[in-house]
Amino acid sequence: MHRTHTCGELSIADLGKEVILAGWVQKSRDLGGMTFIDVRDRYGITQLTFNADDNDAMRAQARELGREFVIKVSGTVIERSSKNLKIPTGEVEIKVSSLEILNAAKLPPFLIEDETDGGDDLRMKYRYLDLRRNPVRNNLVLRHKMAQEVRKYLDGMEFIEVETPVLIKSTPEGARDFVVPSRMNPGEFYALPQSPQTFKQLLMVSGFDRYFQIVKCFRDEDLRADRQPEFTQIDCEMAFIEQEDILNVFEGLIRTLFKNVKGVDLVEVPRMTYADAMRLYGSDKPDTRFGMQFVELNDVVKGKGFPIFDNAELVVGINAKGAAEYTRKQLDELTDFIKRPQIGATGLIYMRHNTDGSLKSSVDKFYSEDELKKWSAAFSTEPGDLVLIMAGGTDKVRKQLNELRLEMGTRLGLRDKNTFAPLWVIDFPLLEWDEDTQRFHAMHHPFTSPKPEDIALLDTNPGEVRANAYDMVVNGIEIGGGSIRIHDRTLQALMFKHLGFSKEEAQKQFGFLMDAFEFGAPPHGGIAFGFDRLCSIFAGLDSIRDVIAFPKNNSGRDVMIDSPSTIADEQLAELKIRTTI
Amino acid sequence: MHRTHTCGELSIADLGKEVILAGWVQKSRDLGGMTFIDVRDRYGITQLTFNADDNDAMRAQARELGREFVIKVSGTVIERSSKNLKIPTGEVEIKVSSLEILNAAKLPPFLIEDETDGGDDLRMKYRYLDLRRNPVRNNLVLRHKMAQEVRKYLDGMEFIEVETPVLIKSTPEGARDFVVPSRMNPGEFYALPQSPQTFKQLLMVSGFDRYFQIVKCFRDEDLRADRQPEFTQIDCEMAFIEQEDILNVFEGLIRTLFKNVKGVDLVEVPRMTYADAMRLYGSDKPDTRFGMQFVELNDVVKGKGFPIFDNAELVVGINAKGAAEYTRKQLDELTDFIKRPQIGATGLIYMRHNTDGSLKSSVDKFYSEDELKKWSAAFSTEPGDLVLIMAGGTDKVRKQLNELRLEMGTRLGLRDKNTFAPLWVIDFPLLEWDEDTQRFHAMHHPFTSPKPEDIALLDTNPGEVRANAYDMVVNGIEIGGGSIRIHDRTLQALMFKHLGFSKEEAQKQFGFLMDAFEFGAPPHGGIAFGFDRLCSIFAGLDSIRDVIAFPKNNSGRDVMIDSPSTIADEQLAELKIRTTI
Repeated sequence: MHRTHTCGELSIADLGKEVILAGWVQKSRDLGGMTFIDVRDRYGITQLTFNADDNDAMRAQARELGREFVIKVSGTVIERSSKNLKIPTGEVEIKVSSLEILNAAKLPPFLIEDETDGGDDLRMKYRYLDLRRNPVRNNLVLRHKMAQEVRKYLDGMEFIEVETPVLIKSTPEGARDFVVPSRMNPGEFYALPQSPQTFKQLLMVSGFDRYFQIVKCFRDEDLRADRQPEFTQIDCEMAFIEQEDILNVFEGLIRTLFKNVKGVDLVEVPRMTYADAMRLYGSDKPDTRFGMQFVELNDVVKGKGFPIFDNAELVVGINAKGAAEYTRKQLDELTDFIKRPQIGATGLIYMRHNTDGSLKSSVDKFYSEDELKKWSAAFSTEPGDLVLIMAGGTDKVRKQLNELRLEMGTRLGLRDKNTFAPLWVIDFPLLEWDEDTQRFHAMHHPFTSPKPEDIALLDTNPGEVRANAYDMVVNGIEIGGGSIRIHDRTLQALMFKHLGFSKEEAQKQFGFLMDAFEFGAPPHGGIAFGFDRLCSIFAGLDSIRDVIAFPKNNSGRDVMIDSPSTIADEQLAELKIRTTI
Repeated sequence: MHRTHTCGELSIADLGKEVILAGWVQKSRDLGGMTFIDVRDRYGITQLTFNADDNDAMRAQARELGREFVIKVSGTVIERSSKNLKIPTGEVEIKVSSLEILNAAKLPPFLIEDETDGGDDLRMKYRYLDLRRNPVRNNLVLRHKMAQEVRKYLDGMEFIEVETPVLIKSTPEGARDFVVPSRMNPGEFYALPQSPQTFKQLLMVSGFDRYFQIVKCFRDEDLRADRQPEFTQIDCEMAFIEQEDILNVFEGLIRTLFKNVKGVDLVEVPRMTYADAMRLYGSDKPDTRFGMQFVELNDVVKGKGFPIFDNAELVVGINAKGAAEYTRKQLDELTDFIKRPQIGATGLIYMRHNTDGSLKSSVDKFYSEDELKKWSAAFSTEPGDLVLIMAGGTDKVRKQLNELRLEMGTRLGLRDKNTFAPLWVIDFPLLEWDEDTQRFHAMHHPFTSPKPEDIALLDTNPGEVRANAYDMVVNGIEIGGGSIRIHDRTLQALMFKHLGFSKEEAQKQFGFLMDAFEFGAPPHGGIAFGFDRLCSIFAGLDSIRDVIAFPKNNSGRDVMIDSPSTIADEQLAELKIRTTI
């Protein structure tokens, strides 16, 4: 071992000890005949002192050490005259008796400090240097802790971790697969799994009873926003259970994680139906850190001659408490915000409940103060509140108002990263209509069980069929979702039919699963959490990139190793493929 | 929940309880007016009773239940009249008050029993049924336990589990890569990792200090014997350490695993140099459950006119203790064994040390009894021993005698699956000569550090350079290997040069790593264990297949899901590739 101690463990209790430390030069400074060097490793920072009076040559050598040199020193732990009580090692320093340079370092292209001067591109290219910075490394340490806690909890609940295959079969359902040409089976391809869905269901058929896996999954999607081609799921499945059991077990998981990793005691995870989430928040993943629930106004505002309201399918608004003093400019900003093409609304109506108690709207022409009192009652406004109202087609206006609600939450400081509001959203629709393909798609996936009482609707009103499906949402972000599965061949075949599969297609792609259902499949269900996202929420980050050691950029490239890349012609020939660019 | 208890937990302490169980029908039998059904889940088996006197209709329904039906029953725990003390639930049974069929089952294509009648192919096609059998499922449960123990140990030693990317870059060094066409970067490919080698080294450069991962790796090799295209490694790396530290930490891991999973206390893991392993066992992975070490005989046997010995580079033998009574037929079998083309030896010389004390060899013509006494002394034979001798080129004859030694170990019952003999083999050569390409290859990989005292030999006698490389061997099977790595750009470049890389090739393929070495790389090293193999040894299995939930066959096919398979033309078009078969 090149050290007796790490750079994070020596304290006043170690005074007088002869120690060996190794690490990176964080910084150095000269003071009279002394040179002070901070040496850093994963565990902390320790100050080294070199005194010209003791050893002029070694002190001179110490002065030559650059940032990020890797050094090994022997010396004595002594008390510091000027203590730094902000760090655990701040009361001591090492009077160095020997210095060895284990490796020199070129000047890094950006500062290895908590606040760096490196831009995104540079830090991605030198990711191994960016990972040296405490905030970045700490995210990965947090991720490690979370993974261990997840395993401990699930192991304690009798879940068995089973590795499912990475080289599987391509299916056209769902997102685009990454594929892998098979050299031994020319002309044929493996696919990388988008999830271990069918395998975990087969494990339930096998009687594994409770399965989990922290597992890499893959989707070849265009990488807008915060997506990665490879991502990690906490994948779980249970047999002989009902929805209630899953919600309880995984509410327990989330509470345990918050408790053991963040020290946060969650009271409970409330539940909300999909229908209520859409009605009250205009979203199936509402941010419930703050209220500002939607209030529907059709009964209140219609028939007063204001055509925008009269012609709208839905008039709906929110009460932004304490925002009555918003200036004209601020209100114009909000209008501009909802008119952006991403949101696409046409206008915003407001009503101020002024601090003097008066009510003032942007549509006074159509609504008297008496009418506005009804608005005030509907929103339970108090003096100082600002009501914001939108109108239009139900689905569209809800989505638009959801964006406005989130924006107001941000502006009013209601979305604190250190507040955590988890929520179960339940009773999702089984199917959703796809305008592009003019057919229904599975909202969750084709293996999700409809609610038994809704099965009859499959033929008459498929869009109304509810599923035994649920999502867990934290602070407006979906962190996991799952469902009770179909375990009956006939019902599974019916689902495939409704999803537009021919019998032959269903058999070719999922025959093994439907066959398995005929050999004694138990009732089962499960859930998968997006582990990257979960870690990023725990770390207080907006992006998942910084909880991934070596992420890819928006073109799916790893700029550090320069991948993907061309491969040799011999490789292509062996695989019996050719590129066509 | 479809049950109040599992099928493995009820005992005499639960008498009188009203319970609900769910599981699979293992078997049923009728006795007078009673039907007895064993219901099974992962946790055990419980006996159910149906009495015609109590409920004739339900008893009739119970008689109709086929094997592997999934049922749910309510009933009362009562004491069994005829107890089965071999199982934990064997003192009680459930007097059933209600019976529900959760799912019917077709007759399985083979018996779901510990001993099955299904052949390999059938069991692979219906893997989900094979996994129901206790011995198969127990292997996966063992694997789960081992994974948790590995993580617990390494987490306790301050290792951080970091996920490295699966979509990486293809490098021509080493085995053949699986590649993945990139849709977003047409004409370019990712590769699946053969190991996270370069990433874990970069994590050391990043100051992660101690890294581990239980991780899927991939090799597109022809699948002779017991290989899988995807396999799992326990991958580890440490900084600021020397070889001794790695051997200690991972000896600790293995001892902890044997202790906590198998209840076996290992004394210690002995160490042997590669040179000694080759000299004493003719193998770099000796099975040290038994002795029978090689004895070299050049000094003893040469110059007596026996041309086979006189002309051989090496004459070497083993003492098969207690085998002197081997018949002519048995000796012929041994000769046939070593003459098989896989071994390719030309002949076997033997000497019996008879129980009457006399010595008798197959080459009495050349060696007098006095000469044989020298043989006897060399092998320390006792009455009853059989000495087996081979001659030839050193490397070749050692390999051949290794095979004979293992065969004799098996024949003499010295290779008990419940005995575990771990061993460190150290000081491996850095390079090995490859006859095909007429150049040196890295024996471990190109990042392995030569022993500092041997670096000078690189130019003069590369084959003699020893590496700081080590393997862990258990019972003659290599379960892990690693090395101290190069952490210096100049030395790494020198290694690439000796391996026949041009400067440009080295920079193109591994430039990012060599660049990283210039920014302050610490001394580091690591190890990787083959987790599938380790599990199979713990499970007492010869093959790794049965510790893998969904293995592939020798053609790399998953016959259950029928993968790999052809993909749609649109998929190929999007990926800008074409098949050329």
